Amino acid sequence: MRDESVERILDAAYARMLAGGLRRLTVDEVAKEAGLSRITVYRRFARKSDLVQEVILRELRRFLRSFEQAVAPLPDMPERVVEGFAVTLRLVRGHPLLSGLLATEPETILPHLTLEAGPYLAVAREYLAAHLNTPDARAVAEMFIRVALSFVLTPDSVVPLGTDEQARAYARRHLVPLLPSEGIN
Amino acid sequence: MRDESVERILDAAYARMLAGGLRRLTVDEVAKEAGLSRITVYRRFARKSDLVQEVILRELRRFLRSFEQAVAPLPDMPERVVEGFAVTLRLVRGHPLLSGLLATEPETILPHLTLEAGPYLAVAREYLAAHLNTPDARAVAEMFIRVALSFVLTPDSVVPLGTDEQARAYARRHLVPLLPSEGIN
Repeated sequence: MRDESVERILDAAYARMLAGGLRRLTVDEVAKEAGLSRITVYRRFARKSDLVQEVILRELRRFLRSFEQAVAPLPDMPERVVEGFAVTLRLVRGHPLLSGLLATEPETILPHLTLEAGPYLAVAREYLAAHLNTPDARAVAEMFIRVALSFVLTPDSVVPLGTDEQARAYARRHLVPLLPSEGIN
Repeated sequence: MRDESVERILDAAYARMLAGGLRRLTVDEVAKEAGLSRITVYRRFARKSDLVQEVILRELRRFLRSFEQAVAPLPDMPERVVEGFAVTLRLVRGHPLLSGLLATEPETILPHLTLEAGPYLAVAREYLAAHLNTPDARAVAEMFIRVALSFVLTPDSVVPLGTDEQARAYARRHLVPLLPSEGIN
């Protein structure tokens, strides 16, 4: 299948998830929204869960591109960690689909963000680890992602994180020390 | 209401949650299991969610007592962090109700462990912070709890954590550095 059709299907799935949530989403409905035949959509996404996973992965890759743009110009790894945490909270809070589903259908979106989050965690971890120049880069990267995800899943905190400056202060104090010294460059 | 009756209600609620899950649990069913009148149970727990929250809080306090017993004899804070992480993973994985609900009813238990976990996070945080002798003890305590909870919610990891020794090695390498130097005593 051409990439163009896949993108069209994912656009349609995203639109339907945003409008009607996750629980009642059907592959048939997505085919209709995309203006494609059911068989075309099913050929690429046999199950609804495949479709949902691919929508989430695409959003994750988009997030990582925005993250990259925000942190790449910064001079060193500590500064990238500080800005990266602030950017992460800002982008996640402003994400229409994620914030919408967490508000309206927590019970259907939460399994994807916890028990079934392995594939997403792996994508983010490999991205981040490639930028950390240390033998246990992947473990350090995974820790950063777990902490950020935790603040998304459970915003209640003793730490004020409402503004970018508060997020930066938290990261400077609590995340930068996680960088192994050989990874700071 | 006497503490004894509250304990009896909570015992009954725990038993019903273990046997039948969370979704179909009713206060009436708990009253029957406890051998108490509906009115007695409703007087103390007006809503099912109050009852569920109190069952979870009691399990959390039990967990904290076991945690305390395991780490109190250790000579310093880094050792307590190392052993505390291993004990946490062991107790959580071996917890019949938590592991049962995560396996059979993730969509009903996950909201309690994420979006609605604020009260539990606060109890654990205040306990842990009281042992950390530093101005931002509560932020550090919260970070430890968030990381541990993350491994409960999303076990998929690049880090092998299957054994106590692996958990200790991880904590030594990645959690102990989170202790501010003035908190290490």
